[in-house]
Amino acid sequence: MSINESMIVYKNKEEKRPKIRTQSDFSTSDHFESIITMDLHTGTHIDAPLHMIENGNTLEGYPLENFIQNCKVIDMTHLTNSITKDDLINLNIQKNDFILFKTQNSFHNEFNFNFIYLDQSAASYLAEKGIVGVGIDALGIERNQPNHETHKSLLSKEIIILEGLRLGEVSEGEYTLCALPLKIDQVEASPTRAILISHL
Amino acid sequence: MSINESMIVYKNKEEKRPKIRTQSDFSTSDHFESIITMDLHTGTHIDAPLHMIENGNTLEGYPLENFIQNCKVIDMTHLTNSITKDDLINLNIQKNDFILFKTQNSFHNEFNFNFIYLDQSAASYLAEKGIVGVGIDALGIERNQPNHETHKSLLSKEIIILEGLRLGEVSEGEYTLCALPLKIDQVEASPTRAILISHL
Repeated sequence: MSINESMIVYKNKEEKRPKIRTQSDFSTSDHFESIITMDLHTGTHIDAPLHMIENGNTLEGYPLENFIQNCKVIDMTHLTNSITKDDLINLNIQKNDFILFKTQNSFHNEFNFNFIYLDQSAASYLAEKGIVGVGIDALGIERNQPNHETHKSLLSKEIIILEGLRLGEVSEGEYTLCALPLKIDQVEASPTRAILISHL
Repeated sequence: MSINESMIVYKNKEEKRPKIRTQSDFSTSDHFESIITMDLHTGTHIDAPLHMIENGNTLEGYPLENFIQNCKVIDMTHLTNSITKDDLINLNIQKNDFILFKTQNSFHNEFNFNFIYLDQSAASYLAEKGIVGVGIDALGIERNQPNHETHKSLLSKEIIILEGLRLGEVSEGEYTLCALPLKIDQVEASPTRAILISHL
């Protein structure tokens, strides 16, 4: 996702909207310099266990090499509510996979309160499989579930959660994912520049 | 560089120090969420032409593929003041290279007002060679030169400038550099998670 002051933010909450302030420009200075204020869950971002688990690991807990690795983009654009275990059991999901779900969310340009999410049954299934990461094209990987069950099923197993992807122009298949979070110490999340590289 | 509230900032200026505020934690909420305020030139970061050139390109002007590419780390730890053209002419620097300079700066844990920098003669030489990017282990690529000559020689040729590297544990040689800036629209710089991958 592009980061700017009019971008989509979770539930349209104003306090989650980034602010970019020009500190110096050429009208009064010899250089241009800006300062940003943003929620660490702005746009495309990675959640660490601390986001939902008290005393959970921060971003440092994830192995660096899992942010640059093979991934599988799975087309779930036929779904209209959520991704469930039943949608996954016939797919070839393996230990150490990084799975990205492409849904109808990628085609929304405003915040959709009924966004497609990963439900608890699917999250538990992926955790059992031993994947290293899961991404989705929503600002949240779950929607209105009691007790944040999807986050907790994944984060309790140290599975990387990558939210806020834009997959509208991406076809189902295998890619190299590069999604390194900023190296911010001791935090529960970070904005992340995420790209896919096609295999030759 | 790790980003935190006690990190090194340019010339120790307090207004350049990042602030991380806890918005929600488990004492009053069911999740942990933080907000960061930071100069876009915080820690390891990429400068775009607009930083020093009025109406210059923003980050969008750089081809995405140049942020993930082969790079050459050159050991300049023997130098005590600056990197000049004379230090470069016997090196194998080619068109489209991404060059990273390792200097004594990587071993400083406080801001050093006499940091090693790339002087104008070296910047012009690299620009003539047609490199795509240059990185250094200082928060600025130049120091106290009139009119920001090093930045302008490089940025006027759309050469990526990567500042604030930490290369103390990196040996001279060739690597794959991965240094994607955040996708912030229409800005002159971005904090960047930069890593090197050894060739097998």
